[in-house]
Amino acid sequence: MLADPSDLNRTVVIESVAPTVDGGRYPAKREIGAVVEVSADIFKEGHDVLVAFVKYRRASETTWRESPMSLVDNDRWAGRFTLEAIGRWVFTIEALADPFRSWLADLGKRVEAGQDVGSELLEGAALVRSAAGRAYGRQAEALEAYAGRLALRPAQAEAVAAAREERLGALMDAHLDRRESTWAEREFEIVADRERARFAAWYEFFPRSGQPGRHATFKDAEAQLKRAAAMGFDVVYLPPIHPIGRTHRKGWNNSLVARPDDPGSPWAIGGKEGGHMAVHPELGTLDDFDRFVERARALGLEVALDFAIQCSPDHPYVREHPEWFFHRPDGTLKHAENPPKKYQDIYPLNFQCADPRPLWQEMRRILEFWVGHGVRSFRVDNPHTKPVKFWEWLIRSVQDEHPDVIFLSEAFTRPKMMKVLAKAGFTQSYTYFTWRNEKQELIDYLTEITQPPVAEYFRGHLWPNTPDILHAVLQRGGRAAFRMRLVLAATLSSLYGIYSGYELCENQPFAEGSEEYLNSEKYELKSRDWDAPGNIVDLVIKVNRIRREHRALQLYTNLRFYPSDDPHIIFYGKMTPERDDVVFVAVNLDPFATHSALVELPLWELGISEDQLYRLHERLTDTRQEWRGRGGRVTLDPQHEPAAVFVLQR
Amino acid sequence: MLADPSDLNRTVVIESVAPTVDGGRYPAKREIGAVVEVSADIFKEGHDVLVAFVKYRRASETTWRESPMSLVDNDRWAGRFTLEAIGRWVFTIEALADPFRSWLADLGKRVEAGQDVGSELLEGAALVRSAAGRAYGRQAEALEAYAGRLALRPAQAEAVAAAREERLGALMDAHLDRRESTWAEREFEIVADRERARFAAWYEFFPRSGQPGRHATFKDAEAQLKRAAAMGFDVVYLPPIHPIGRTHRKGWNNSLVARPDDPGSPWAIGGKEGGHMAVHPELGTLDDFDRFVERARALGLEVALDFAIQCSPDHPYVREHPEWFFHRPDGTLKHAENPPKKYQDIYPLNFQCADPRPLWQEMRRILEFWVGHGVRSFRVDNPHTKPVKFWEWLIRSVQDEHPDVIFLSEAFTRPKMMKVLAKAGFTQSYTYFTWRNEKQELIDYLTEITQPPVAEYFRGHLWPNTPDILHAVLQRGGRAAFRMRLVLAATLSSLYGIYSGYELCENQPFAEGSEEYLNSEKYELKSRDWDAPGNIVDLVIKVNRIRREHRALQLYTNLRFYPSDDPHIIFYGKMTPERDDVVFVAVNLDPFATHSALVELPLWELGISEDQLYRLHERLTDTRQEWRGRGGRVTLDPQHEPAAVFVLQR
Repeated sequence: MLADPSDLNRTVVIESVAPTVDGGRYPAKREIGAVVEVSADIFKEGHDVLVAFVKYRRASETTWRESPMSLVDNDRWAGRFTLEAIGRWVFTIEALADPFRSWLADLGKRVEAGQDVGSELLEGAALVRSAAGRAYGRQAEALEAYAGRLALRPAQAEAVAAAREERLGALMDAHLDRRESTWAEREFEIVADRERARFAAWYEFFPRSGQPGRHATFKDAEAQLKRAAAMGFDVVYLPPIHPIGRTHRKGWNNSLVARPDDPGSPWAIGGKEGGHMAVHPELGTLDDFDRFVERARALGLEVALDFAIQCSPDHPYVREHPEWFFHRPDGTLKHAENPPKKYQDIYPLNFQCADPRPLWQEMRRILEFWVGHGVRSFRVDNPHTKPVKFWEWLIRSVQDEHPDVIFLSEAFTRPKMMKVLAKAGFTQSYTYFTWRNEKQELIDYLTEITQPPVAEYFRGHLWPNTPDILHAVLQRGGRAAFRMRLVLAATLSSLYGIYSGYELCENQPFAEGSEEYLNSEKYELKSRDWDAPGNIVDLVIKVNRIRREHRALQLYTNLRFYPSDDPHIIFYGKMTPERDDVVFVAVNLDPFATHSALVELPLWELGISEDQLYRLHERLTDTRQEWRGRGGRVTLDPQHEPAAVFVLQR
Repeated sequence: MLADPSDLNRTVVIESVAPTVDGGRYPAKREIGAVVEVSADIFKEGHDVLVAFVKYRRASETTWRESPMSLVDNDRWAGRFTLEAIGRWVFTIEALADPFRSWLADLGKRVEAGQDVGSELLEGAALVRSAAGRAYGRQAEALEAYAGRLALRPAQAEAVAAAREERLGALMDAHLDRRESTWAEREFEIVADRERARFAAWYEFFPRSGQPGRHATFKDAEAQLKRAAAMGFDVVYLPPIHPIGRTHRKGWNNSLVARPDDPGSPWAIGGKEGGHMAVHPELGTLDDFDRFVERARALGLEVALDFAIQCSPDHPYVREHPEWFFHRPDGTLKHAENPPKKYQDIYPLNFQCADPRPLWQEMRRILEFWVGHGVRSFRVDNPHTKPVKFWEWLIRSVQDEHPDVIFLSEAFTRPKMMKVLAKAGFTQSYTYFTWRNEKQELIDYLTEITQPPVAEYFRGHLWPNTPDILHAVLQRGGRAAFRMRLVLAATLSSLYGIYSGYELCENQPFAEGSEEYLNSEKYELKSRDWDAPGNIVDLVIKVNRIRREHRALQLYTNLRFYPSDDPHIIFYGKMTPERDDVVFVAVNLDPFATHSALVELPLWELGISEDQLYRLHERLTDTRQEWRGRGGRVTLDPQHEPAAVFVLQR
């Protein structure tokens, strides 16, 4: 059956719309203040002049706003709008033939060819009169007057001149008949996050550590806040702060039997003192936590919590909601397993239980609880063991109320799951950076995650270490490797973080071939000498300062790799769209030997000619150099400076 | 709000499904008998063993059939089904966790680690008992028996052996509980055309030509059918055969005033004798046309008609349906124009009229009329001046009744419109081949249109000439160029055609710089000496014979380009998936000089080692050569043989 006539007349083709994720299935990501460049292939049968508009609105609004699109080339059109508020936005495209502009273009060709345009002028007059019928007041009168002038057939030249008047064009544009316009076949979402979603340096530490011989409190941990702030970090991320189970508690170095004093893994959440909405008593009270958050804020720091959906055998849920767990045939609950490995201190939650709705709602309640205590960032543990659909719902429903909440997804070895979690809503994602150490694999991987299509939805957060991962390059390469990986993480992405101890170059593995730390802080209290010889605190401070001073390093999708003729030296740059901040970075990936490379700068992009002198300020050594031509030599001694961070001086 | 619980538990992610066009917006194209390889990224939270199925059916059926998918790599799955009938098919994907297979995999790991599996065996028994509840008769009994064996806890080794029995696995597979399976978020269409949609040689001729001094009839044109059949063509395509208008009829060489004897352009459709459903009286009657179609069929030829939606001023629609045309302010109808050019012999139809429905239906009635007279192929004139939406409806509604009808879209200089018309339903499309004459542009363009994503919906039909286009390469290069372009067209694509006169190397342009023929057959009757010296009929016969003998040349997406070290010599190959038919083609693109190239064969794909001797049969010169190694030299003299077509001899 044929649709109604007006629908048959909506014949503009609108396709290949950007930015979109999976054809509109998932939202694209941007930050507040961003100008969204919308483009699409827009065309129609025949030769009409087209007009097109980006239609956009906040998801919570019902009225569309619009901005005009213009033809770029080969039926590609582009327009733009600004994300003025954080939260979810919706856009689509409206396009239609413009009968007046089409008529005017043809009229010009006819007049140029010396043809009689008497009939055409009457046509034009009819178009203008019709627009007058859609206008009011003075505009209607003005259009009527134009219609009269066009219809004056004996004086064609004057009528043509009237038709070409800019004021008439503007009036006709303003009263375009859009009743039979075509809209794109669907609407597309964009999530506008706050700027911290894109630019942040995170510092992870265990608040229970730091006091020799005893469990530290939130009050004690204020000293760590001060250190983090002094090093220039933006976010402090705490492993779970909840009561820790006693049943099957893991001991020192993950031993199966805990000694009486072993504090247990904070990821074994829940005890008789409460579960995910309680604070571990030895850290203090909820009020102490509030004070800690307040203290962090005063230092310019944000507190991020770990969200780990799992329970110790002592968690209140075990009693209150046995239906949320896995059961053995004898009725007992099942602990976590990855056969043949067993994790007796943890019970996983069963997201495939008979009615998952109360479980989903409870998870949301946990997040709302901590949002109520000033937390706006959550690092999510093992998201890939819970349904993607659950995360899509959870993140959306939390952000509908609190659009400033940031979710960081942990990484795991399933690249497609990583990506779909980001599509489904995670604001940021851990990456495989930790395991990318060779030049070409760094180039390939960082290009993949910082460029479309992936970068439309994925913001890679680079961690050289975590409490779970001490990579071999750090174990073997020592201090030089720590410095090298720090500069890489902090300059390749606008998002990076380190787990405390990194600045002391702690690199003792649990065993040869293991990525676990010896005497891991996951299972014991630590007390460190932050001024220990060999620490790289100065470099951390320097790097974070450079990041804060250079907007180019605060952007995510502007990473570009440039030629370097040595296989150990990677060379890349970041610049602002306006080219008013330009940073180049060369890093020696070999922590054991000095290497030297001829690197090549994209002078053509910077408007610098081949014979022009330009100045680079190397920030790590605070030295200034004059270069000429696109090529320059960089020599990097890992024992001295494993990297060079050049700022272009204008 | 949360959906119902069973929906929350459908948590498999199914994405990046192939083959699809624009994420499922348009159907993909295949031919009857084709095996559709369906693939997708399929994964789920956690570590369950998954199972997945391609679900497929003819669009006219309601019951799904299915075939199993298997894991390829990195969460990519693949399965296949065969298109057993022409017409529209639908497929989607169903996937779910397999509790029994997951349990069995874990059981194996536990047993291997020497763990007690008493509790696990009881779990397995419960799974098997549950499957028994879904089975009937003997299968239910067998499952109950297995459940009993698994539950025999004291004899774990025996129970484990029972769990691993293949028969149990097969029974469990057959009674998988799919109530909470996940289906892909949409269904995807595939159009299965008949084989002629992919493999055909077309020959275009004017049936009114051929009789010295008079208008030929369908009866006369049977001689042309014989010629076309003798040359080895599959389809004869006729310009419009309808009554031609007299008002403003175009004369000799497109002159504005026709002489009394000028026959007019067949594209000025409609006269007092009728419109699109009538036959031009000088060609004969509808009965004569039927006989002509019958005669063609007896010769193994199919008749294709031109479908040009436009009317001469004398077309019956002008009187009967003035509402379908464009009107001037004085009420008269508007002829076609592309300002300042005027085409007074043609009135375009107004697809944006107040109610386009009767017009759309009438267009369908025209096609149905000719389908009723044995026509199954239509070459569509100027499709880009009518709405894409109209074509999508028209082609679908005709093919719903007659799935064997083929639509060939004319080309024009808007690449995105070309592509969307193919997506919207055109079976085949003219291409820009005519204007691609240099080596790299041929490689780029042919690769684009024969490989995904374009080849999923686009079948390029290569025409070295048409009545509208006599390209400069033919004007300048003469006979050598005609031979060269014929071999290219016939071997680059499985679909090609020539407009008659090509075999005589007619190459006189209307004017210097024009692509129109001098004394174009569009405006006059022609009578040719088909045996004229210099004709290339022998080559046409040879090329069509090679195409019929070699299935590799009958496939469309199997074109691959291989290295050739001379910029004038292009080298490519086509092979069947089974590698049982392998053809390589070298063409000298320079019609003026001999060139010689070292070409490189993909021996690794053919299982031929570097030191192995192999034989090539060059078909144009009927010579046999022995080659060794991947490289071979080809020397091509355009005056002698502009191309070499090598068949690999096994």
